[in-house]
Amino acid sequence: MPTAAALSAVPALSLSAAQTLIEATAILAFAASGLLEAARRRLDIIGVCTVVALAAFGGGTLRDILLDRRPLFWVAHAEWLWILLGLSLLAMLFLRGRHFEPTERAIQWPDALGLGLFTAGGTQLALDAGTPAIVAVVMGMITAVFGGVLRDIVCNEIPSAFRDHRPYAVCAFVGGWCVVAGERLGVADWLVLAGAAAITFALRALALLLDLRLPTWRGD
Amino acid sequence: MPTAAALSAVPALSLSAAQTLIEATAILAFAASGLLEAARRRLDIIGVCTVVALAAFGGGTLRDILLDRRPLFWVAHAEWLWILLGLSLLAMLFLRGRHFEPTERAIQWPDALGLGLFTAGGTQLALDAGTPAIVAVVMGMITAVFGGVLRDIVCNEIPSAFRDHRPYAVCAFVGGWCVVAGERLGVADWLVLAGAAAITFALRALALLLDLRLPTWRGD
Amino acid sequence: MPTAAALSAVPALSLSAAQTLIEATAILAFAASGLLEAARRRLDIIGVCTVVALAAFGGGTLRDILLDRRPLFWVAHAEWLWILLGLSLLAMLFLRGRHFEPTERAIQWPDALGLGLFTAGGTQLALDAGTPAIVAVVMGMITAVFGGVLRDIVCNEIPSAFRDHRPYAVCAFVGGWCVVAGERLGVADWLVLAGAAAITFALRALALLLDLRLPTWRGD
Repeated sequence: MPTAAALSAVPALSLSAAQTLIEATAILAFAASGLLEAARRRLDIIGVCTVVALAAFGGGTLRDILLDRRPLFWVAHAEWLWILLGLSLLAMLFLRGRHFEPTERAIQWPDALGLGLFTAGGTQLALDAGTPAIVAVVMGMITAVFGGVLRDIVCNEIPSAFRDHRPYAVCAFVGGWCVVAGERLGVADWLVLAGAAAITFALRALALLLDLRLPTWRGD
Repeated sequence: MPTAAALSAVPALSLSAAQTLIEATAILAFAASGLLEAARRRLDIIGVCTVVALAAFGGGTLRDILLDRRPLFWVAHAEWLWILLGLSLLAMLFLRGRHFEPTERAIQWPDALGLGLFTAGGTQLALDAGTPAIVAVVMGMITAVFGGVLRDIVCNEIPSAFRDHRPYAVCAFVGGWCVVAGERLGVADWLVLAGAAAITFALRALALLLDLRLPTWRGD
Repeated sequence: MPTAAALSAVPALSLSAAQTLIEATAILAFAASGLLEAARRRLDIIGVCTVVALAAFGGGTLRDILLDRRPLFWVAHAEWLWILLGLSLLAMLFLRGRHFEPTERAIQWPDALGLGLFTAGGTQLALDAGTPAIVAVVMGMITAVFGGVLRDIVCNEIPSAFRDHRPYAVCAFVGGWCVVAGERLGVADWLVLAGAAAITFALRALALLLDLRLPTWRGD
């Protein structure tokens, strides 16, 4: 049974290589978003490491604190702390201002993958913990979106997820309800996870390709 | 036995309609303060919902995390998430810039009610959890004030509760000690709650009517 | 067996007067850093007390939430809340703008002491809770550094620990690994604590005396 180990406290020994690869891609995409933000702000190595870790694991950590689940993912998978530390050091050595924009464009797609995986996994975890459907969907959104929110708060910005009027958390909202619907219909767990992640990814991809905007406040 | 269900994880089935109404008024006032802040910042729908939910439930959630109580109020009363979502959508459709100031003035009084209820309920919960008196008072203040603090942090402002030199948390401080005194004197729980909430409300009302200010830093 | 009561939920009755003095010095130094920040921002009494308490206890509180340890230090040692409240009131009466700079210089050394003690104690606690070595080191850094981080976030600044390019958390990182090494080598707990705290303090003192800087982002 494939589970999103990135979202689970249990070492998922049964993960196939493909799954591990997808998961690692998602985590690295989230970490890279933190890296770019930290680089723009010219933070020092401590700041870079912290913002990178917040972007990658902040959402799942907040969800686990709200649901009172332990151990946290990065406590159970401490090797990831080493990977993020190494990534941060390499970035400070080799990342230059001229790399920011291409990097940003390049991570849009793995980031959308992360959005899908983290949403589906987080919603499923919350349902398993017995929360009502709407709470589970919110937990899925927190898992996927609040890493970026915490990244922006530490960098002293209004979180971009709250003000850029582009569909991001909204895709997670829809994806979360797909998980709820799947579980209610008795679909197998792995299929729910894969399907909801794919739908979320597809919605986000559509929003990126068509440059969609959310409706905004009307004038005056 | 009237309990502040807004502050409790236990469904309070015995709540009278009057209590439910007071409680809902307080939650909606707190939510409205988040709504106005989010509207001023022109956040998108995700930002509006988040800031509204933080303003309404952030203080109680932080208190429950500090005291290790679960489930959180909004997990046990998930219907409130729907209500706040609907409120946010309606606001984005109908709220205009010219409504901000009258709305702000109109919510001062239900907000003062919320300050009283959340303070008294939060302090009582912490005392029941066995904390020392000063900690219980601090927990009452956190319940009542930190929703607004989190709202302001997310909106990238120094929390107004920390810098506007108007008595707000100070009223909660006094109200919290009334709860402690009442419990020490053996007064019935519901009377302690109602009395302390009333005193906190009265102090806040006085501060609003007389436009009182806290002493500030002296020159130089 | 000397334990860092500042970091422990268990009342440390066996603490000698010397230890209590060192610990209190460290807490007061952290609190004073919050006081100066709050004074610069001209926060009101509620803001001052909150920022002071965050600076002193925020790091340990965050670590305990992440590790799911209760009660929190300031819940178990509520007398400290009174001390910090008194300190805040006195500061508002007597602290003037012209005192800021000398105070800042004067607290550098007790602050370095706090860095050492909080790092060593926090790392030891996390190791005792069974976390992997790198997680324990991170928990030690969180204990020592995140009080200041939360102080800066509330005051609407990018945390200075993340951007001033001076060795602070980096000293904690080294000190944390000294704790890990000591425990692996079977050194007595109190000796590990004292040794690692001393090494962290010495590194920070060196950084202050030689005005060391961390390597920064390279141009372009």
